[in-house]
Amino acid sequence: MTRRIRAIQYGVGATGKIFVRLMAERGIDLVGAIGHVNGVGEDLGEYCGVGRKLNVTIRSDADAVLEETEADVVILPIASTLHEMYDYLIQCAESGKNAITVCDEAFFPWTSSPGMTANLDHVARKNGVTICGSGYQDIFWGYLITVLSGGSHTIDSIHGLGQFTVDDYGPVVAGHYGVGLSTRAFAEEFGGSEVPGVGNCVEMICATIGWTAKTITQETLPFLFEEPVESKAVGMVIPPGTVVGKKDVVLLETVEGQTLTVEMIGRVYKPGEEDVNAWTIRGVPDISVRIDRPRTDILTCSSVINRIPDVINANPGYVTVDRLPAPVFKPHHLGHYLRSG
Amino acid sequence: MTRRIRAIQYGVGATGKIFVRLMAERGIDLVGAIGHVNGVGEDLGEYCGVGRKLNVTIRSDADAVLEETEADVVILPIASTLHEMYDYLIQCAESGKNAITVCDEAFFPWTSSPGMTANLDHVARKNGVTICGSGYQDIFWGYLITVLSGGSHTIDSIHGLGQFTVDDYGPVVAGHYGVGLSTRAFAEEFGGSEVPGVGNCVEMICATIGWTAKTITQETLPFLFEEPVESKAVGMVIPPGTVVGKKDVVLLETVEGQTLTVEMIGRVYKPGEEDVNAWTIRGVPDISVRIDRPRTDILTCSSVINRIPDVINANPGYVTVDRLPAPVFKPHHLGHYLRSG
Repeated sequence: MTRRIRAIQYGVGATGKIFVRLMAERGIDLVGAIGHVNGVGEDLGEYCGVGRKLNVTIRSDADAVLEETEADVVILPIASTLHEMYDYLIQCAESGKNAITVCDEAFFPWTSSPGMTANLDHVARKNGVTICGSGYQDIFWGYLITVLSGGSHTIDSIHGLGQFTVDDYGPVVAGHYGVGLSTRAFAEEFGGSEVPGVGNCVEMICATIGWTAKTITQETLPFLFEEPVESKAVGMVIPPGTVVGKKDVVLLETVEGQTLTVEMIGRVYKPGEEDVNAWTIRGVPDISVRIDRPRTDILTCSSVINRIPDVINANPGYVTVDRLPAPVFKPHHLGHYLRSG
Repeated sequence: MTRRIRAIQYGVGATGKIFVRLMAERGIDLVGAIGHVNGVGEDLGEYCGVGRKLNVTIRSDADAVLEETEADVVILPIASTLHEMYDYLIQCAESGKNAITVCDEAFFPWTSSPGMTANLDHVARKNGVTICGSGYQDIFWGYLITVLSGGSHTIDSIHGLGQFTVDDYGPVVAGHYGVGLSTRAFAEEFGGSEVPGVGNCVEMICATIGWTAKTITQETLPFLFEEPVESKAVGMVIPPGTVVGKKDVVLLETVEGQTLTVEMIGRVYKPGEEDVNAWTIRGVPDISVRIDRPRTDILTCSSVINRIPDVINANPGYVTVDRLPAPVFKPHHLGHYLRSG
């Protein structure tokens, strides 16, 4: 009686290709594919390196694909802000399909973009579908910390450091981190306004623990090297003095008196540098956790794939992961986890 | 409308004293206290170092305390095996009180002691109460790993290493780890039969992920030093060649083909040694986590205290933590988390 899950891949960039390979290996039926530039007209399996045809052609007429195709879920690794994702998510909801995006802000956008989130929630409910933001942040900047907090007697502050290399992703992500910009162009793009949602894992942690956010501030700083460094993501050697990435420091203060800070660094690495993910809960007692060399590119995709049944099972609306079950690996065919009815 | 939670402390040894101090600080009403040797007749607050009287006398007539006292939950840090805990837990259930124990085996005893667990489940249901095993293992040998597995695409094996010093606990725990025994006495006590439940976190992980356990084997080895070392827990210098602790290696093989191993080391430390808690999930991708210098003594107690509302809210029966919500710090008065009705 277990049926297979049918997914549409929306976006076939670097991350989209990993999604397609991993979903094919997990026995998910890829029934549709949308791309805007590269890959259009090609077979999804061949283009994404699955090693066989999936007999699904990548198309650029997104509306038609969404309307014509019966599917349980749309996977969208497209952009980092909810503003950029808004039309895509509306499109999915109006076609009656659940959507999961790895968009940074979509992880917990209630505070950073309350109006857009409320609209998305409304349209999703009206169409009986769920919109969710997941990815690496779901576990490694989210549940990992909230679960560890279950050992706390008191908490004064929570501090996180996440560092990843944009070279594991494509040029779109590199662009969001300012790679290749002059410091002046960086200041113009990132200096004036706050980039919403980049560090909103602290808001998810705050909400899950049950504190009330009082103030949230964000500072964005460019990263520079003194020697040239090669970036795979942008396909060039970046000269000294040019931006190789950025550091976002987000500080949330709670009404109850805690401070939650997170430093998120996305940049090009020098040879030998590694990803870092470390969190400290200060209080009674202190709790420190470190993840060694996380494979953020795969973890981003497989975290979402393990979430697919949870999102299909969830109530309609914009459902952030704090309202889903705790993440866990799903060893059986993913259709096995669908609630009947 | 938020009412205060009323707890009975059953056992006022080293761990029981920490429980009492932390529960008093969290605004839990300590309404009863049971001790068998030390502290009997003394005020619970004064005896446990709360810094004030709690106006509760530690008594040794357990049945009478349980019968006479209205309470929501009994906290039992007494022994390591379900066999030793059985009568205590029956006593709590028959008096109509929920019980949480830090007993190692009680964390997931369905396989190691199926008959006793089924009986406890039956008596708990009959009396409308919940029995649960929690503690450090709930988070750091349990949910920490199952949540991280939510990032896995495939899993081949899971390996855990936990090392703690018995000197953070009392002589009872030290006794369970063979501290002070000769190697001959150690072999007699631990060599012949498997100690049930010491590593049953692998069974909780297996059950939470949804694999089926095929075989579980356990090996118990003594730890020895070549120089004398002082143990606070037993209040003596342990001569060379005498047991300072033990290492339990538990191996679980799943029907689906995974191996789950855990090495649990409890022993006296040489100066400068530290607690270790490290887990690796091998598969696609590998995921490694390390907890730096966990304060296992406090974490044991505060993990249980954050669980109190979950256990009171749970359905009657023997409820292992995989059937409770994910652990999380509860910043508000704990009565706030009780479901009405």
